[in-house]
Amino acid sequence: MKKYTEIKDISNLSDMIKEAILLKMQPFEFSELGTHKTLVMLFFNSSLRTRLSTEKAASNLGMHVSILNVNDAWNIEFEDGSIMNTNSSEHIKEAAKVISQYADIIAVRAFPGLVDKEKDASEYILQSFIKYATVPIVNMESATAHPLQALADAITITELSEKRKPKVVLSWAPHPKALPQAVANSFVEMMIEMDVDLTITHPEGYELDEIITKNTPITHNQTAALKDADFVYVKNWSNYKDYGKVLNEDPNWMMTQEKLGTAKFMHCLPVRRNVVVEDAVLDGGNSIVIKQANNRTFAAQVVLKRILENL
Amino acid sequence: MKKYTEIKDISNLSDMIKEAILLKMQPFEFSELGTHKTLVMLFFNSSLRTRLSTEKAASNLGMHVSILNVNDAWNIEFEDGSIMNTNSSEHIKEAAKVISQYADIIAVRAFPGLVDKEKDASEYILQSFIKYATVPIVNMESATAHPLQALADAITITELSEKRKPKVVLSWAPHPKALPQAVANSFVEMMIEMDVDLTITHPEGYELDEIITKNTPITHNQTAALKDADFVYVKNWSNYKDYGKVLNEDPNWMMTQEKLGTAKFMHCLPVRRNVVVEDAVLDGGNSIVIKQANNRTFAAQVVLKRILENL
Amino acid sequence: MKKYTEIKDISNLSDMIKEAILLKMQPFEFSELGTHKTLVMLFFNSSLRTRLSTEKAASNLGMHVSILNVNDAWNIEFEDGSIMNTNSSEHIKEAAKVISQYADIIAVRAFPGLVDKEKDASEYILQSFIKYATVPIVNMESATAHPLQALADAITITELSEKRKPKVVLSWAPHPKALPQAVANSFVEMMIEMDVDLTITHPEGYELDEIITKNTPITHNQTAALKDADFVYVKNWSNYKDYGKVLNEDPNWMMTQEKLGTAKFMHCLPVRRNVVVEDAVLDGGNSIVIKQANNRTFAAQVVLKRILENL
Repeated sequence: MKKYTEIKDISNLSDMIKEAILLKMQPFEFSELGTHKTLVMLFFNSSLRTRLSTEKAASNLGMHVSILNVNDAWNIEFEDGSIMNTNSSEHIKEAAKVISQYADIIAVRAFPGLVDKEKDASEYILQSFIKYATVPIVNMESATAHPLQALADAITITELSEKRKPKVVLSWAPHPKALPQAVANSFVEMMIEMDVDLTITHPEGYELDEIITKNTPITHNQTAALKDADFVYVKNWSNYKDYGKVLNEDPNWMMTQEKLGTAKFMHCLPVRRNVVVEDAVLDGGNSIVIKQANNRTFAAQVVLKRILENL
Repeated sequence: MKKYTEIKDISNLSDMIKEAILLKMQPFEFSELGTHKTLVMLFFNSSLRTRLSTEKAASNLGMHVSILNVNDAWNIEFEDGSIMNTNSSEHIKEAAKVISQYADIIAVRAFPGLVDKEKDASEYILQSFIKYATVPIVNMESATAHPLQALADAITITELSEKRKPKVVLSWAPHPKALPQAVANSFVEMMIEMDVDLTITHPEGYELDEIITKNTPITHNQTAALKDADFVYVKNWSNYKDYGKVLNEDPNWMMTQEKLGTAKFMHCLPVRRNVVVEDAVLDGGNSIVIKQANNRTFAAQVVLKRILENL
Repeated sequence: MKKYTEIKDISNLSDMIKEAILLKMQPFEFSELGTHKTLVMLFFNSSLRTRLSTEKAASNLGMHVSILNVNDAWNIEFEDGSIMNTNSSEHIKEAAKVISQYADIIAVRAFPGLVDKEKDASEYILQSFIKYATVPIVNMESATAHPLQALADAITITELSEKRKPKVVLSWAPHPKALPQAVANSFVEMMIEMDVDLTITHPEGYELDEIITKNTPITHNQTAALKDADFVYVKNWSNYKDYGKVLNEDPNWMMTQEKLGTAKFMHCLPVRRNVVVEDAVLDGGNSIVIKQANNRTFAAQVVLKRILENL
């Protein structure tokens, strides 16, 4: 594996999931693989799960981990040819090349601004690292994608599915703040790669990028979508058409135990209780969110392992 | 040992102190004990000694350490059943369960707000971690207790006492800011467990919680309290009755070399010079504050060692 | 080596450079030297290169590294005899002695305020650590010096020089913000120790401290200075006479490819493109800034190695 910045970087998903499940059983089997190798984790945005699980994955493989909150250092310039006489102290060209010399792998978290759709779509932060760094890049959630989360989700569904081809529903949920489409995008892309029956449901106007959803069935009727579901992935995202806007906070879209029925409840976390999903779901037996979060470690570990093997 | 969140978690104090002193002589004797074990240190408040000494203790035992300033991530909700549509992004129920999957031990620092006495007394942050985490919890100073500091203090007194039953005085000191009762509470609780002659002295109105002080002699006459003292522990705490208030900044309560006489001077640090204690004391031969701080490492190390042995 | 806070701490520069180049070829040859040794890195100011390269150097030697942003903890008092009843919570006397007990080596970054010349010149932060700490101190850039950068620069010039005695020019550059003289000072001091032909060029009024520049040729004529240069080190510093002021932002002092000719371009980074130096230089074949940054690791590693050998 040369990098892991998008779902497309996975060449054989089913193998990768199997290997992650093996790593979960024997997390320290390859604890020498990362000896004398350094993972530099760069955070442009805050993190809890991604930070701790990716650090743990690297540590399980024997890597040294350096963690830098980029905003604690200074502003980085991404524009080509700019005259840097205002706020930015260092250009990504230098930053990426320099950090590459201290790292064997660089992991980057960089959320979208949710103001300029085109700028976010360009993934200028992540793409600049891919372009200028001289070591493999791992995406710890970028403007439009969260492939480590999606891999953890794929592992979780594989582990817990009781059917050959489960019905998986992605159901939009209300949220007081504008959130990215990243988790939803990568989940949809990942499910399309898997042998599942995927349905998306969201309020009118909340369509995701068609390039991502392709021909996945989409309905505004949540009840219809949830019928006979095996896995229900609940997630808010802000408007993609009327970009970054919160136009709908309709509490009827909140997931309830009644709506969920016997399906398994998934969410990437953090989740706002009684806004996105009611307590009864999270505290009930059908929630698998804690297992999903645990699989973040092994998703990261299988990715780092494959990159290390390819160095 | 199953956790270390309060003094009561120590089953045999004298054994524990002896073991800590042995660890101080041979800090790397158990450097394989923590192999493939992770300590996650969560800071809701800032730290210098606790941060560095606990990290060092874990490292001496071969553990991997992950450090997270929780406020760098997001606000955590602690209320049961709340509708999370304002500032909190994640509920402690999820946070504690998730972090438990990345950690073998979780250490938490969470100061009191010093505004709502009942809320602070409930120790809702620490207690929530104890309740929802699935791994042992270590208290790195909570709203009402600082048991790692108290254990370091007990080790220090044991090492340096020249008497079978030394006279130990806890003497209140002025301070411009409102400080918690945590250090004083745990020190008193710890001294009650030890074979010492404990006296507390503070201005009128600065009584600590009676549940903690029990039948310890308390006087408002500092001079009388300090008579024939072997160890004088100086510490400010804000008012407990008129909760969190600074009603007294009387400089006459500052510790001086003259008052101290030949007793040994103790303080948990950080200490404000010439407010809490005059320079002459800290710079003189009777101050043992640096030794106390050193023992923070071995207090943490004996606690982590016993928890690791019990995993 | 007992400490590395100034260029004078190097007893045999040529040996040290040779050893650094050997470490670059075999970075893990001494990976057991730092076993059970802790480097505490204290940052009073932000850092990217220094942080990552020094951490990597310590890791290459097998050390445990603890990193603390001091401002995340609290304000430290440096004045002797002060009554600490305002903003400072801990005196450097305690802080330095305490941290020394958790560290085998302490590395400190502390920029100047650029307001009070005498205070900055006193190097009160660094000197306080040297005075009160009981373990060796490494300077990760202080008010007036950046000796790790200068050592990396010396390594880089040694590696890339094609002449027995190359001509090295330090050329001032414009910058919108007031920057310290630290990098320029240490570079000049280091070059004076090396067998190079050094020239300094800057606008009138931007003279560095004469105690540092000694009898180095200084000219306000950049063109004349750059003639036949082999290495051109470009760097802004704010006014030293009219202390900390930005009196000149003349873009004619920006380094261009035309001015540079065939000389190699050096800069400590971060660098503001098209203000300090034009894109064509940084993107061209004569820039060696990325190599300089790489040598930061091995400068730090040779320093840490020699200190460890002397513990």
